[in-house]
Amino acid sequence: MNTIPGFLFSGIHAGLKKSGKKDLALIYSEIPATTSAVFTKNIVKASPVILGQQRVKDGLCQALMINSGNANACNGPSGYESSVETTRILSDKLKIDESLVIPSSTGVIGKKLPSGKIKKAIPRLIRNLGANNIKDTAIAIKTTDKFEKFGHRKFKINNKTASIGIIGKGAGMICPDMATMLCFIVTDLKVSKSALNRALKIASDNSFNKITVDGDTSTNDSVFLLANGLLGNRELKLTSKSFNKFTRILTEMCLDIAQLIVEDGEGATKVVKIEVRGAKTLRDAEKIVKTVANSQLTKTAFYGEDANWGRIVGAAGRSGVNFKPEKLVLSFDGIKVYANGAQFQPESKYSAVFKKPKFTVTIDLNEGNYEFHTFTSDLTHEYISINSDYRS
Amino acid sequence: MNTIPGFLFSGIHAGLKKSGKKDLALIYSEIPATTSAVFTKNIVKASPVILGQQRVKDGLCQALMINSGNANACNGPSGYESSVETTRILSDKLKIDESLVIPSSTGVIGKKLPSGKIKKAIPRLIRNLGANNIKDTAIAIKTTDKFEKFGHRKFKINNKTASIGIIGKGAGMICPDMATMLCFIVTDLKVSKSALNRALKIASDNSFNKITVDGDTSTNDSVFLLANGLLGNRELKLTSKSFNKFTRILTEMCLDIAQLIVEDGEGATKVVKIEVRGAKTLRDAEKIVKTVANSQLTKTAFYGEDANWGRIVGAAGRSGVNFKPEKLVLSFDGIKVYANGAQFQPESKYSAVFKKPKFTVTIDLNEGNYEFHTFTSDLTHEYISINSDYRS
Repeated sequence: MNTIPGFLFSGIHAGLKKSGKKDLALIYSEIPATTSAVFTKNIVKASPVILGQQRVKDGLCQALMINSGNANACNGPSGYESSVETTRILSDKLKIDESLVIPSSTGVIGKKLPSGKIKKAIPRLIRNLGANNIKDTAIAIKTTDKFEKFGHRKFKINNKTASIGIIGKGAGMICPDMATMLCFIVTDLKVSKSALNRALKIASDNSFNKITVDGDTSTNDSVFLLANGLLGNRELKLTSKSFNKFTRILTEMCLDIAQLIVEDGEGATKVVKIEVRGAKTLRDAEKIVKTVANSQLTKTAFYGEDANWGRIVGAAGRSGVNFKPEKLVLSFDGIKVYANGAQFQPESKYSAVFKKPKFTVTIDLNEGNYEFHTFTSDLTHEYISINSDYRS
Repeated sequence: MNTIPGFLFSGIHAGLKKSGKKDLALIYSEIPATTSAVFTKNIVKASPVILGQQRVKDGLCQALMINSGNANACNGPSGYESSVETTRILSDKLKIDESLVIPSSTGVIGKKLPSGKIKKAIPRLIRNLGANNIKDTAIAIKTTDKFEKFGHRKFKINNKTASIGIIGKGAGMICPDMATMLCFIVTDLKVSKSALNRALKIASDNSFNKITVDGDTSTNDSVFLLANGLLGNRELKLTSKSFNKFTRILTEMCLDIAQLIVEDGEGATKVVKIEVRGAKTLRDAEKIVKTVANSQLTKTAFYGEDANWGRIVGAAGRSGVNFKPEKLVLSFDGIKVYANGAQFQPESKYSAVFKKPKFTVTIDLNEGNYEFHTFTSDLTHEYISINSDYRS
C-alpha cells in the first residue's frame, strides 16, 4: 500500500468548477506536523499565500485545504477574510486549532471566492478522508492540467522504512491566472524545522525553480512539506548522516513533478533542457538560461522542429551578460553546432535532434566554472488557443 | 517633390531573395554627411554592425548599402571580410573613400553572405540611384514586413525650408532572425556632430526603444542619421534655438516608423500602449512596462480581446519591482479597472476597450513621480505560424 503513515487525503466536487469535476481537497495529519514552505516571489500575492505565510511561521501544520477553480487573488480584504473564515470552519469541524490549517487556492484571479460553497462542502470533505485517496487529492487540485501528478517513495533511514508522498499541479511554473504551480509533500519522518527548511529549499531550487513554461510567475505558487514524525525515528537534523539522503530523494521527487509540469505545459509538445556551462558567475549562467528558455523565438523554433541555432545565440547575446561570442560553443544533445563565431558543421549533422520530444541545448561560454539549467516547453498554436480563448 | 537635397536612393533585386523581390539598397549623399548612429545592445553583433561602429566613429558617411535576405551575423571572420569587401567595391565604383561607406544587413543569421551576387549587382545599384527612389529603398530593405515604411517632412529653420527623409523596416524591435529593425534618416540640414548625436539619442529613446513585438533584440538593429548640410543653414548646435524643434520633429518621425513596426509586428492584430505612472524610479517604471509588454499571458489576452486584468497585475507583480499592490490603480483607456487591491467595477464597464485595434493600459503605482511607456503587439496564432514554419 502506498500510504503515508498518519496522513489522510480527500478530494471532492464542491461546486467551484462548472464542469462538475473535483475542486476541493484536504490533506490531514493525525498529529501536528513540522512544516516548511516556499511561496511565490510575485509581489502580488493571493490571500491564501499571505495567510499561509503567517501560519507556517511557527513551523506547524495539521491540515492543508486546497481549492481549484478560483485563485482568491486580487480580491482585496474580503478575499483574505474568505481564506480565514473557510479555514476556521474546517478547524472547528476537525477540532484542531485554526492556526494549524493552511489554505491554498488556484484558478482565476480577481473573482470572489465562493466561500459559501466551500463551507457547505467541508463536512463531506472530512467524511471522505482516507489513507488511499492521494489520487483524488491530485485530481481535485488540477486546473488546466491534462493529467494528475503525484508520487510516493519508500526508503531506509536508520533501518526504518520512511515514506514520502508528493502531490503537484501546474501547467507551468509560470502560469495563466488559472494554472498556478502547487505542490504538497508529506512524510512520516521526524525532521527538525531547520533540516526541513534546508531540504525543501534545496529540493525546490533544483526542481520547481528550474522549469518554465511561459515566464509568468503566478500569484499563488506554493510548495509545502509536512513531516509528522510518526515513523518514530531519531529526529533528522542538519548534521544527521541521513540528511543528504533525505534531501536527495526529496529533490528527485520534486524534479519528477517539475518535469511532469513542463510536459503538461499548456500546449507543449516538447521538453527542452537549456543548460549554460563555463560562465564567470552563477548569476550570468542563470540569466542566459532564463533568457533563452523564455525567448518566444527559441520556443517557436522548438515547436517548428527548426534547428535554428541563430535564435539561441541571439537570445544569449541579449541576456545582458557580457561574454565573448567567439568563445561560445553551442551543442544540441552533445552535437557541436556553433563554435569560433560561426556554424560548426552542416545542419544535416544536428537537425534530427529537434525532431525528438526531449532534447538538451548546451551553451558553453568557456569563460568560467559556473553552470545552470532549466527545463522549458515549446510555444505552440495550442498555447495561444488556451490563453486567448480562456474566459471567452 | 518629396526629395531630400543632395541624397539619392536606389533599390534593386540582386538575387539574395529567392522570391525575386528587391533585396539591395543604396542611400548616397553627394558630399560626405555628418553622421550619427545607434546600434543593437546585443552582445552578439552582426559583421556589418561591427564594421559600421568602427566607420561611424569619425562622424562621416557618404553611402549606406543595405541588403535584406541575409543578416551576415554569426559568420565568423569571413563574414566580417564580406562586409569589408563589398563596401570596398562600392567605394571604388563611387570613387569615394571606403571609410565613407557603411553596410547594413538583415535576414537569416548564420548563413554565408552571398557577396558575389552583391558585388555583381553594385554597378546596377549605382545606375539606379535617383532622388525620387526612396520608396524603392524602403521596399528593398523589407524582410517579413508586410508593407514598406518611409516618410518625409519639410519645416522651417531660420527661414530656410529643411527636409528630413526616413526609411525604416522591422516587424519587431526585437525580431526573428529574419526581421531586424533598421532605420535610415537623411536631412539636408547642417548639424554639429554633438547635436546630431544628442538628437538621435533622444529620438530613438522615445521611439524605437519604446516598442516591442517579442522581446527578442536582434543582432543587427541599427539607426543612422545623416546630415549633409546642403541646406546652407548656420550649423545647428546643441545650444541653437532650433535644436529642440529639430529634435521634436525627428522624434515624431521616428515614432511614426516605430508605431508602423509594431502595427506590422509579426502576426499582430493590436497595438497596445503600456504605461506605468507614479513609480519611485524611472528604472522601476521601465521594468514593469517591459515585463507587462512582453508577458505571453497579457499578449494572448490582448489577442483574445479578453480584458483579463489579473494577468496584467500578476505580470507587474513578478517584474522584480517592489510596490504596494493595494495602492496600484489599473485603467484601460482611462477607465478604472482595479484599485484598493481588487476589481473596481463590473467587467461590462471596461471590456469593450479590448475590442479596439489600439488602446492604452495604464498602471499607476501612486508611489512616486516617474513614468515610462512602450508600444506592444498581441501574441497570435499567426506569430506562431510565421516563426515555427519559417525555414522549414
